[in-house]
Amino acid sequence: MEEHRHVTIYDIAERLNLATSTISRALKDHHTISEQTIKKVKQTAKEMGFVPNTLAAGLRGNQSKTIGILIPTITQPFLSSLISGIEITARKSEYSVIIMQSHDSYEMEVDLAKSLYSNRVSGVICSLAMETKDTSHFRQFSNNNIPLVFVDRVPRDYDTFRVVINNYLAGYKATKHLIERGCKRIAHLTAGSEFGTLYNERKRGYTDALLEHDLPVENDLIISLKEMTYEEGVKASNHLFDLKLPPDGLFAPGDILAVSAVQTAKKRGIKVPDQFAVIGFNNDPISEIIEPNISTITHPAEKMGKAAAELIFKNLKSVKEEEAKEITFLNTQVLVRESSKKI
Amino acid sequence: MEEHRHVTIYDIAERLNLATSTISRALKDHHTISEQTIKKVKQTAKEMGFVPNTLAAGLRGNQSKTIGILIPTITQPFLSSLISGIEITARKSEYSVIIMQSHDSYEMEVDLAKSLYSNRVSGVICSLAMETKDTSHFRQFSNNNIPLVFVDRVPRDYDTFRVVINNYLAGYKATKHLIERGCKRIAHLTAGSEFGTLYNERKRGYTDALLEHDLPVENDLIISLKEMTYEEGVKASNHLFDLKLPPDGLFAPGDILAVSAVQTAKKRGIKVPDQFAVIGFNNDPISEIIEPNISTITHPAEKMGKAAAELIFKNLKSVKEEEAKEITFLNTQVLVRESSKKI
Repeated sequence: MEEHRHVTIYDIAERLNLATSTISRALKDHHTISEQTIKKVKQTAKEMGFVPNTLAAGLRGNQSKTIGILIPTITQPFLSSLISGIEITARKSEYSVIIMQSHDSYEMEVDLAKSLYSNRVSGVICSLAMETKDTSHFRQFSNNNIPLVFVDRVPRDYDTFRVVINNYLAGYKATKHLIERGCKRIAHLTAGSEFGTLYNERKRGYTDALLEHDLPVENDLIISLKEMTYEEGVKASNHLFDLKLPPDGLFAPGDILAVSAVQTAKKRGIKVPDQFAVIGFNNDPISEIIEPNISTITHPAEKMGKAAAELIFKNLKSVKEEEAKEITFLNTQVLVRESSKKI
Repeated sequence: MEEHRHVTIYDIAERLNLATSTISRALKDHHTISEQTIKKVKQTAKEMGFVPNTLAAGLRGNQSKTIGILIPTITQPFLSSLISGIEITARKSEYSVIIMQSHDSYEMEVDLAKSLYSNRVSGVICSLAMETKDTSHFRQFSNNNIPLVFVDRVPRDYDTFRVVINNYLAGYKATKHLIERGCKRIAHLTAGSEFGTLYNERKRGYTDALLEHDLPVENDLIISLKEMTYEEGVKASNHLFDLKLPPDGLFAPGDILAVSAVQTAKKRGIKVPDQFAVIGFNNDPISEIIEPNISTITHPAEKMGKAAAELIFKNLKSVKEEEAKEITFLNTQVLVRESSKKI
């Protein structure tokens, strides 16, 4: 049962004082690497007991065949649709899917990444924790040729695969919809995180839509939340309604926040949509059950999950060097329901 | 990277033609086993390269320290609360939690159990798929001293740990509540599964409450669903409302079914609770958001998760033989809301 430490291309690179990309290419007889270097790298790899990933994957075939998903929470319907997409694709290749939730904690994400690595997953799909500002804990995958794909909440700078929606465009569309129905003072809830680009992009879309329609961007109407929860949404809504000049519209970057705003408005006797129009985000089931139903932005979560899993499998099978790339889904749509219907 | 097959007490039992329980006890110098047998078992174990679980767990310490959760779906709020409870307890012992969903498919459950075993989890907590009638795929854990706990949807006969609620009592309480508010024709939705005792128990509670209050049990009013989904709930509700003598109350064994019934009633102009009173099960967040709010049965899901994880850790640490046992939570409560308020 003794476990040998897994020798990586990183170890070989260190020994030979070469870049990991050179080692990786040399092992694959890449045409850009000199014959001499290829020989030296292969010799060293052999001495160190290096097992190439494809071979290692084969050896441990019966052991893992597992895609690890590391996400903030399983309770968000958007993320469970994402998981469905991954599972559908994984199942076709007879891979299992294991799920871990970071609860938006950086510390937990670090621990869980280590655990996924120890569980020898074949590939990792991750949506970052809200707290995460440093991504070095993902290097263990990249350095060991374990395919890694970031989805939705992606890091700003990490040269691996990413699957996202155009959050700027979605934020722009949502805000424009409220403007077109006649709202003049549109509030926005956003996240405090500086690292995550997602909420910043939605906010940028919101701001640009306002400016384009000659509406002022008022700091009073933009509230940064600590967490994207129902409770925080209620607090923020009450704060907005207590303003001297309360808003007549809200773009909430999540349906649970939209629900909290609608419920708060109703409790205070504010009519939705006549006095206060609301649009959410994600098209969660709850947005259809609450009364009035909530307008929202559709999110191709399942498609994104499929795309992410396909990237993993492409990388597991391919012997060629795959270039890091970003897949951006553009087909988010405004779904108009009662909460923002024209009067 | 070569993997040796893990020698189990099952292998030793086969070699010596003894029961696995004898092997297990002999290795622990149990007083019920003769000295001669203990000596023979230990000698054979040594020859075969057997590593006792506690030692093996130590050896592979850096590798796993993971509790595997195998459940029908992550989208049920009750199950995410269960997971939270497991995570809280696991985190205290610095264990990670990995989650797999069977989507109520027997075939997937078999594959995922295999995958969990391959991922060398330290323990397994499982709520069975609706389809599952045979549980032999869990023997790989029991045979290898990997602690196994069934939660909520448990098998009828498997001598391991189980954590459940008293479903009979909960069904009885829910139905009695409707009777006490004046309902005379109470419908019930149930699951088609014969293996799972959970829905049968709730139905038994429903039946007994009716009989005890001199109300007839009418087969017309009891509908077996293929799946516990919103869509199936709508179908069943429409069927009930189309009856010559439609019901004036419903005990739905899940909140999503209660929601579907309330929505269907509203669409047909049937007043809830005046003409049709409804009580659900689980206290899902949605039951508080829909109008009218839905009365429900509380479910100690997080506590059950904690109890299940504690059983795992007790077994991981203990050198003593732990007896299989069932922990039954009794504190389910009727939570009266608008959907069944007294007129």
